[in-house]
This record gives sequence, C-alpha cells and structure tokens, in this order.
Amino acid sequence: MPELRKDPITGRWVIISTDRAKRPSDFSRDQVKMKGGFCPFCYGNESKTPPEVLAFRPNKNGGPSAERDSPGWTVRVVPNKFPALGIEGGLNRQAQGMFDKMNGVGAHEVIIETPDHNATLATLPEKRIEDVLWAMRDRILDLRQDKRFKYILLFKNHGEPAGASLEHAHSQLIALPILPKQVIEELEGAKQYYIYKERCVFCDIIRQELADNLRVVSENKDFVTMGPYAPRFPFETWILPKRHESAFENSPSHVYESLAKAVKDLLVRADRVLENPSYNLVVHSSPLQEPINDHYHWHIEFMPKLTKTAGFEWGTGFYINPTPPEEAVKFMREVDVSAAQPVGTQNH
Amino acid sequence: MPELRKDPITGRWVIISTDRAKRPSDFSRDQVKMKGGFCPFCYGNESKTPPEVLAFRPNKNGGPSAERDSPGWTVRVVPNKFPALGIEGGLNRQAQGMFDKMNGVGAHEVIIETPDHNATLATLPEKRIEDVLWAMRDRILDLRQDKRFKYILLFKNHGEPAGASLEHAHSQLIALPILPKQVIEELEGAKQYYIYKERCVFCDIIRQELADNLRVVSENKDFVTMGPYAPRFPFETWILPKRHESAFENSPSHVYESLAKAVKDLLVRADRVLENPSYNLVVHSSPLQEPINDHYHWHIEFMPKLTKTAGFEWGTGFYINPTPPEEAVKFMREVDVSAAQPVGTQNH
Repeated sequence: MPELRKDPITGRWVIISTDRAKRPSDFSRDQVKMKGGFCPFCYGNESKTPPEVLAFRPNKNGGPSAERDSPGWTVRVVPNKFPALGIEGGLNRQAQGMFDKMNGVGAHEVIIETPDHNATLATLPEKRIEDVLWAMRDRILDLRQDKRFKYILLFKNHGEPAGASLEHAHSQLIALPILPKQVIEELEGAKQYYIYKERCVFCDIIRQELADNLRVVSENKDFVTMGPYAPRFPFETWILPKRHESAFENSPSHVYESLAKAVKDLLVRADRVLENPSYNLVVHSSPLQEPINDHYHWHIEFMPKLTKTAGFEWGTGFYINPTPPEEAVKFMREVDVSAAQPVGTQNH
Repeated sequence: MPELRKDPITGRWVIISTDRAKRPSDFSRDQVKMKGGFCPFCYGNESKTPPEVLAFRPNKNGGPSAERDSPGWTVRVVPNKFPALGIEGGLNRQAQGMFDKMNGVGAHEVIIETPDHNATLATLPEKRIEDVLWAMRDRILDLRQDKRFKYILLFKNHGEPAGASLEHAHSQLIALPILPKQVIEELEGAKQYYIYKERCVFCDIIRQELADNLRVVSENKDFVTMGPYAPRFPFETWILPKRHESAFENSPSHVYESLAKAVKDLLVRADRVLENPSYNLVVHSSPLQEPINDHYHWHIEFMPKLTKTAGFEWGTGFYINPTPPEEAVKFMREVDVSAAQPVGTQNH
C-alpha cells in the first residue's frame, strides 16, 4: 500500500509509492521509445489493461462489440495498471514520531480517449472530445459517492517531455483522500477575494479580459479561452466557463458540447503555433465536499512544455516567464482554426 | 524593464521578462548543444561577460592577474548577461484594472565556480567549494544593503535537463523585491510549528532523524545530510546545519568549511549512485529583513532530475514519488566517498 506522508514544514502531502519503488538503475537516462511496439490501449488488447470501469460503445446492441473489455468502444476508462494509490482499505492516519502519515488510499484511472492509436485529442472530432468529457463527468459522479475521497484531479500529460509514458491518447483521473496544497491555496485565495469584494475573482477576471481584449484567444457561447495575467509558463492558457460554476461535474449538459469546441479550438491553435507541443492539461475544480459555492470557478489550465527551467522553479515556487501573455495570445489568435483542421475530422 | 505581475487568485508574483520576449520559433525543440564551442566563463574571455562584481585572485599582488576582468581568478561573480530583473529604478507598484504589477527590479548574478571548463562542483577540491560559498556570502552581504530587496535566492542548475544553459560550472543569485510564495509558505509553516511547540521544526527533525538513523546519508561536526520524510522527488536530499541558524550568511566562519565538505560529500555520492545526474541545488534561507529568528532554519535542498513528471505536478502541486527516502538513502550511504574522489582532487 502506498503511503501519504505530510511534510512537517509546509503541510504538503506527498504520495510515496512503495509498490513501485525504484532503484537508481531504474531511472534510465534514455527515455522509453514511444513509437511503435505493443499498445495496451488499442482494439484487441483490452485484456492487457485492468477490467474497464466505463466504456462508450455506440453499437451496444449490434453484436460482439457489446461485450465488456472487447473492441467497439469509442472511449474506455480503466484503472491504472500501476496505480499511485490503492483503492482498498481505510486511511489509518497515524504518527511516525513527529511526522504524520496515512495509507495511500485513492483511485487512479486512465481515460483512453480514442481507439485510434494515431489520433490526438486535438485531431479528434468535437463529438468524440465531448464523449471524453462525459466519461470524465460520469467517473466523478461515481467516485464522489465514496466518502473517503475529498478531491478528484483530472489531467492529461501529452508527449513524453510532459510526463506521458504511453503514446496512445489518454487522460488520467486521481481521487484523493486529501486536498492538494495548491488546490487549498487557490480555494483560499478565491475565498479571500470573495470575502473582500463579494464577487468571484474568476468572474471579475472574465469581465475585465473580455472588456480589455488583450489576452483573449477565442470564445464561444459558454467559454472564454485566454492567457492569464500572470502566467508561470510561456503560452499558458486557461479555458473558463463564462457563467459561474464551482465544479466541472455540475455543468448543464449543453456546456460539455461547448467545452469540447473550446478544447479543440485551443489544441488546434497550439499545435499550429507551437508545432505539436508536449503539454499538460489540468482541470481545476471545487472539492467533492463543497461542489457548489460562490467563490470558486472551475476551469482548465493548459501548459505547453516549451522551457526546461522547471527544476529551479520546483525548488522555489518562483517563476520567470520569457513570453508576455499578450504576445503569446497574438500568435494564438492568428490561427485560422477551420483551415487548421486535418481533412477527415469534419464529418461528424 | 521586466514586470513583476501578481496572480490575483493565489497571490503568486511572476517575472514577465519582456526584454527577452520569445516568439514561438525561439523555443527550439532541439536543445542547445552544450559541449564544445566558445565559453564566456573560461580564462581569457572575461570581456564577454558584464564586468565582474567580485572575484577571488589568490595571486592578487603577483602581476597582471591582479587586473579586474582578466584571468587568474578562482571564483568570479558577474551580472547575468540576460538578467531576469533590472537593477535600476524603483518598484513603481501600480494597478492594471483589477491586477497588480510592479517593475521587475532586482539583481541577477552568476557565480562562476571554477576557471576549469571540465570541472564540476562535485570534482572541485573542498577548499575551492568553500571559496564558492564565501563568494555567495559576500554577495549577500553587499546586496542586502539595498533596501529594495526582500529575499535572495541562491541556486544551481547543473545539466541541461535541470535548466542549465551553459556547461561551465556556475551557480546563480537572484535578489528579489518580493518574497516568493513558496518561501512565505515555508516560513509560515515553520512559524506555526514554533508557536505551537516553542521549538524550531527543523531542529526537531534533525534530532529525530539522528536518533532514528533511517534517512541520514552522512554527517560532519556542523551538518547533517538526509532524505526528508516526505520528499517530492526521488533522491531529494537536504543538508542542514546542526546548530540553529536562520540565515545562510550569518553562519560563523568555520561553518563554511564544514559546509564545503558536506556539499562535496553529497555530490560525490549522487554522482556515483545516479551516474552524474543533472540536478538543482537551492539554498533556503530567511528573508533579508528577518535574518535572525527562532523559527526558521536555513538549509540546502538537492533535487536530482530523474523523472519527467514535472508538468502535471506544476499544475497541481501534487507529487508522486516512486522512491521511498529510506530506500534512496541506503544507496547514498553505501558509497565509499574517499574512493569515489577522482585522482588529483585530494591534494589541497
């Protein structure tokens, strides 16, 4: 069972995953080749992953594809084969001298976004991206019934420099028995602003950005895509719902269709401007136990992996960004998104 | 002039370095080749850096090497040629609608650790490492007289994956007009512990670690080198002074000699166990305006760059560490440090 350990100075909880303990020789300097070879996320290899917890099969009643853990799906969710957290048991909080720990209880799932090994989230039709978003929502609604969990992280590592270990398009979900420190800080910061102003800080940002029009990349009826005022990374971009909503999973149905459009729009622009960058996408949402509130506004943060200064910034929390967001946004705006779509993704 | 911008949600200040604004094409996917070519940090190329602010020249009175910006130095400190912050002017704090910014005022210096292009901090004799530490201290004592500065960051990026852009051994110093968010959190965490226990949390950690002897790598009369209880990264290792001291620059003289030994010991072990890893070293110290206090205990954090999961962790503040510190420490302890020293580094 992995352990959750608390740093006694900052209060940060860290997963120490004892099950997959690594020896020095395991940190190969030559990274895994991702191209070619066997892929557990392709059709026909369903038995090579843990049994699915969710799958969308459009032809459910049409034959053998209706079988669980068999081909025919468009989106498939499976437990991570090498989970960072264990699903069974209690937290068993305890001291270790002056230190604090608990069992690493949680869920770690993989959302396989498409059966097509060569597709990326950016090249999927909007309808397929929407399916991915629905799968994420369904998993949250299921997992939030487990009262051990306080927070669900949804994220995507695209490309090996961004931490992906498999090439086939996928996202991940981690359900945690604690709130990550950075989540607490964002929630607290937003709450302080709300106490002072009696307005949501994100709603205020959206109003100012739409009025200034300096950092807006694009918008549709439900979402605005923009560079934040103080981005940590070059070309960092956020997608925010225009209407105040605290949690991703509480959005009304039509919002997922708009979100799929916004995600596709952003990824197509980034692929064009930054030449298919590696990136991380992270959904920032309210804790499971406070899914409806006035101060926090769920959103997606997109961070392309363009610079290598991470190490220092890890150690200090101090960021130097060489690209002003106003400059980055100019490049992102210029892309003709309809022209940038590959042929064959329009017929949906 | 670069800008310091504040994220309105978390309160994090970020440097937006407008002077070296990057276009998308500047983020080359093929990193700079570091081997070979012209090196501005080698003897004879002193005119290729900004004029030195400090240099140690053992043969000061022995001839032409006494000249500033000429060869003959053992350690040389120069302003960064591409500084993240500008040294001139006032902060000029102001609003930008709902946002906050100020001028990016600060110092950004490079400590060239050796004239030997092929040496690393790990292969330098202890006496030379001590010189580097004295140079760092001298620069802090000078810069802290400038009342615009609140914090001085000392750090080292070793190897290109850790963010180094030049191969020749060097460290960096950044003097800031604000406290970085992570520094505030560490200080606040330590203060909370002190208020509750009336003891320094780091002093308590040192006592428990020396008693348990589970995570201690090595020690000398003034320092203990150990894996922290809840490390974010595999083989993360801290060097702490055994006696309570809030700030790096306030240590008594003999301590720098012991620290040089501890730094060398750690780097030699890491080079042996992890095969010359890229790494970041960060000095954690008290703010300039509170250099003596009971709750904060300065120390060094060493983070080898072994995994590539940074992107996700940037976005969440949530860390998964596949190597328990107890396991990492076992490998680090096993190294025969005297045998691991390259021939030719012993005669000092």
